[in-house]
Amino acid sequence: MKLEKIAIATGNEHKVEEIRNLLGPLPLIVTGLPPGGEMPAETGNEFRENARIKAQYGFKLTGLPTLADDSGLEVDALQGAPGVHSARYAGEGAGAAANNKKLLQALEGIENRRARFRCSIVLVMDDMSIEADGTCEGIILDGPRGRGGFGYDPLFMLPELGKTMAEISQQEKNAISHRGRAMANLVAALKARGLL
Amino acid sequence: MKLEKIAIATGNEHKVEEIRNLLGPLPLIVTGLPPGGEMPAETGNEFRENARIKAQYGFKLTGLPTLADDSGLEVDALQGAPGVHSARYAGEGAGAAANNKKLLQALEGIENRRARFRCSIVLVMDDMSIEADGTCEGIILDGPRGRGGFGYDPLFMLPELGKTMAEISQQEKNAISHRGRAMANLVAALKARGLL
Repeated sequence: MKLEKIAIATGNEHKVEEIRNLLGPLPLIVTGLPPGGEMPAETGNEFRENARIKAQYGFKLTGLPTLADDSGLEVDALQGAPGVHSARYAGEGAGAAANNKKLLQALEGIENRRARFRCSIVLVMDDMSIEADGTCEGIILDGPRGRGGFGYDPLFMLPELGKTMAEISQQEKNAISHRGRAMANLVAALKARGLL
Repeated sequence: MKLEKIAIATGNEHKVEEIRNLLGPLPLIVTGLPPGGEMPAETGNEFRENARIKAQYGFKLTGLPTLADDSGLEVDALQGAPGVHSARYAGEGAGAAANNKKLLQALEGIENRRARFRCSIVLVMDDMSIEADGTCEGIILDGPRGRGGFGYDPLFMLPELGKTMAEISQQEKNAISHRGRAMANLVAALKARGLL
């Protein structure tokens, strides 16, 4: 019983593109949700919980195996904030620029800049769901660098590469990002279970 | 990777016993949750949702693969009520006698007595969860019959047997009840995936 077609449940167009891209080489038809719906509130305290909420929502809507991710930035000096609130750190709908500004202010004068992106991905099917995680370690800069990516990417320096997440190619990002790693883990789990 | 030990997440001692009984023949160590905890609120609109909430809670608490069920009675003439509210139909903590009384009152003078028990079971593991359902069709009597079972069992007539769910043996119940069928479906799904 192989997967043939899946839906991606997200309100973020950037994520749809990244996930399509990550799934590109696989023999899968990838569809979004029907337009017009509003994504459910992400009320979970953990990335996995929010990914589950979104994937269950998409599964109910489409009847297709549905994949959703939830991801965010954990900053050590901020006790793991913004965490599950990453997308709305500066307020609901405030956007990436405001979030980045708030993060820089919160870290002003602070020496410990260690942080990590985390991603959880959940694939919900009729009688089973599969979950996977990925992380990516880095350093928060004093200001943005690069024009790629989205969200906190321009502030997130990858020490091994000497570049921010906004300065690397999509291909590099797929290989080392939290989302790329979570997806690789999910794909491995699906293959191990004969679903791909 | 076979399952060796699982936890059952429920606040209902009757259910622990029934589930232990159903799992009896399998090479599984079955444990409850550590005492003293309070089960999470069952806020879902569907049996599966509530089963997921309980199983996730138990998994977090124990770190063990955790099984939870949610079940209830759907009465056709009551548009599917009491449904997910079956255990608290007459109010939180009111108990089975009050629930049964309320059901009989709601059906007074109503000819269509068709109803079904539904059960959903969810087994949550670290990176996967498996879900299964079972149903059992019956008729709501005008008054209780039998001393076995619990909940609505004494009012629930099994037409093929001419007995209520409270008049049959545990062994018969395991074979035909909603919970027995859901568990059989779950066990089949676990075996199909090499987990049992």
